[in-house]
Amino acid sequence: MLSDSVVEGPLPNGGDVAAFRKLWDQIAPVGRDPVSGGYLRFAFTEPELRLRDWFRQQAADRGMPVESDGNGNLIAWYGDPGAGDAVLVGSHFDSVPHGGAYDGPLGIVSAWLALDRIREHGPAPRRPIGVVAFAEEEGARFGVPCLGSRLLTGELDVDRAAALTDRDGITLAKALGDEPAGARPDLLARIGAFVELHVEQGRALVDLAAPVGVASGIWPHGRWRMDFTGEANHAGTTRMADRRDPMLTYAFTVLAANKEARRFGAQATVGRVEVEPNATNAVPSLVRGWLDARAAEVATLDTLIEAIGQKATERAVRDGTALRLTRESVTPLVEFDGGLIDLFQRVLHGGVPVLPTAAGHDAGVLAGHLPTAMLFVRNPTGVSHSPAETAEDIDCAAGVARLADVLTTLATGPETTPDTEPGDAP
Amino acid sequence: MLSDSVVEGPLPNGGDVAAFRKLWDQIAPVGRDPVSGGYLRFAFTEPELRLRDWFRQQAADRGMPVESDGNGNLIAWYGDPGAGDAVLVGSHFDSVPHGGAYDGPLGIVSAWLALDRIREHGPAPRRPIGVVAFAEEEGARFGVPCLGSRLLTGELDVDRAAALTDRDGITLAKALGDEPAGARPDLLARIGAFVELHVEQGRALVDLAAPVGVASGIWPHGRWRMDFTGEANHAGTTRMADRRDPMLTYAFTVLAANKEARRFGAQATVGRVEVEPNATNAVPSLVRGWLDARAAEVATLDTLIEAIGQKATERAVRDGTALRLTRESVTPLVEFDGGLIDLFQRVLHGGVPVLPTAAGHDAGVLAGHLPTAMLFVRNPTGVSHSPAETAEDIDCAAGVARLADVLTTLATGPETTPDTEPGDAP
Repeated sequence: MLSDSVVEGPLPNGGDVAAFRKLWDQIAPVGRDPVSGGYLRFAFTEPELRLRDWFRQQAADRGMPVESDGNGNLIAWYGDPGAGDAVLVGSHFDSVPHGGAYDGPLGIVSAWLALDRIREHGPAPRRPIGVVAFAEEEGARFGVPCLGSRLLTGELDVDRAAALTDRDGITLAKALGDEPAGARPDLLARIGAFVELHVEQGRALVDLAAPVGVASGIWPHGRWRMDFTGEANHAGTTRMADRRDPMLTYAFTVLAANKEARRFGAQATVGRVEVEPNATNAVPSLVRGWLDARAAEVATLDTLIEAIGQKATERAVRDGTALRLTRESVTPLVEFDGGLIDLFQRVLHGGVPVLPTAAGHDAGVLAGHLPTAMLFVRNPTGVSHSPAETAEDIDCAAGVARLADVLTTLATGPETTPDTEPGDAP
Repeated sequence: MLSDSVVEGPLPNGGDVAAFRKLWDQIAPVGRDPVSGGYLRFAFTEPELRLRDWFRQQAADRGMPVESDGNGNLIAWYGDPGAGDAVLVGSHFDSVPHGGAYDGPLGIVSAWLALDRIREHGPAPRRPIGVVAFAEEEGARFGVPCLGSRLLTGELDVDRAAALTDRDGITLAKALGDEPAGARPDLLARIGAFVELHVEQGRALVDLAAPVGVASGIWPHGRWRMDFTGEANHAGTTRMADRRDPMLTYAFTVLAANKEARRFGAQATVGRVEVEPNATNAVPSLVRGWLDARAAEVATLDTLIEAIGQKATERAVRDGTALRLTRESVTPLVEFDGGLIDLFQRVLHGGVPVLPTAAGHDAGVLAGHLPTAMLFVRNPTGVSHSPAETAEDIDCAAGVARLADVLTTLATGPETTPDTEPGDAP
């Protein structure tokens, strides 16, 4: 429980901003594609291995031992890791193809700088603090997002994981240099809380004029495959009235999904499509689109999908086409630890907004096993997974200061405040 | 000019239907894919070479010499080919991938049967009749439709044609066994008219309850590339209001193209699309669609494209996206020979409707060089370039009878009736 005597640390000053920029510049060039300006930092490839070396060097500079969990995740310990009730803080290095600089690395750089603030300003932590770098969060190399955290928590079968291959046929086991260790309940049992700082992937903090926010949870989200079938035909000779063109039903459904998502305050995207035969002079026989949908609540998501499916089916009747809607995956709601969120709000004097996110994170995986929470740093473009993703140095420094505040409270308070018992489902 | 004494030949009877079926069954199995039921008869590949052998055998059976024009086109002559003012009749053997049985071959089989009717019922032709099989009409192997007729007429540069390659890198010259001969004005000068019978590729004749129709011309048609650009973004975290999603503009434009085409009595199809990055969880940065549009007149086509472009541009403003519309190719109106059409109507006692088509044919190429006309045979499904393409035997026999009527008139009348001077542009 938070001790009322804990005092919020100082706001960032010029020195903090400079400290952020200095550490940031050490990794900024690594894996950057000079043409796109985006990053190619795939798990266990050369750029990401260089970032891991950099991580070990940061630990060495601070006299901290580094523990590997056997799943590709690294933890650098400040204080005795065997003492238990540790506070874990960090994120991931890997990127999507041509992704942004901040998604992942900002959480690790911030963790080092927050630790430095704690060491400098005190009070001395009563619990160990572990700085963590998770492996393959984006799933860009082996196809499974949050691979490292899923292995650590036992959410991913170790044999299945070992056999995963990248595009060159290299297995995860080969990339790791060994079979993954899989679930580490012994390690999880030593951790009392996990905090991940992340660049915001939208513009909510811009609208709220807040440099930092606290995450309430991760929206339920899923993917549905939509197979629109019609009749292949000659684009020149088939009269409009005689067509059964699935491209029309597809197009209508794309617009309907957008409209319904806005109506429900949810999100719907159709970003992937395949067409057969995909010829300029042929009415298609098949248009296959993938619908990505997310909402604050499972019930809203269900209602949204039902509404889109109904509109699409009505249109299909009109077009003489057919629709098969297949649910490919759905991830339920992740609620971050209420106790931690309350604590963050008190520590930060209510000065930070609480907002949900619709993106998956390692924190979403760990939330099922540990009291977990997230901080977001403002992103002026709101763009993510793209070279346009960005954050101001002053906001990053503010993120470091707020992260240091909550870590101080967690590591020096009488006890951490689990609202979730370890082992709860996400 | 048509001699009024020419009497229309008899309508098809059971024997004519049986004769059609007998000849048709000789080629029906050649190149048929047992899985799709469609045909894989690509120019100069084994199935198409077998059909050419069959063509030579038909000629031999009737004591007719076969002339190769050096461009892959075969002509079997009835009467003295050197006499001039010949009547050419035929079509092509090659198919699109998994195409129908009738598109092309029906015109060649009908030509043999019409010739048989003339030989049987008289009167004896005063002019030579050439049965022709054109090469690579569909362009499915070397990518250039009407390849044989374009070479013969000089519309395709012979060096460019010789270097064309198929997907295996085999050149046209290699497939032909020699460099193509190119333009053959000497051969064209010996031909007074060309008639092509073809299965209808729409359902106009079904609606008109007519087994056979006469083509008035080929609609102007073209292809436009539409590049819709927006901003790649995370499908989960980017609020709907913050997106610049080109898939929305694309979808709107697909529906607008359909609506505008119906409004103008024209045709518009978007059958091909490419998306970047084409990922389920990413708002696309680019959606590229191809618009195939056709109309009865060039002015209508221009107006249609302008209307679609305007609607798309308005929507792009709303979506925060951009559209670049690029004209890739436009083929102007082909009008078949007015004299021939009038003659056909008189010979057939006005009993056949005259209708335009929106598909390209060898007849469209020859129309720029010779008096040319087409007959269509009813297609119950209206479907073409697909295994569902079909025609009733009784309608095919009616097509043979009507083709025999017009050939008789052309080959026995005092002169053919050029409305177009050889060398006119198409």
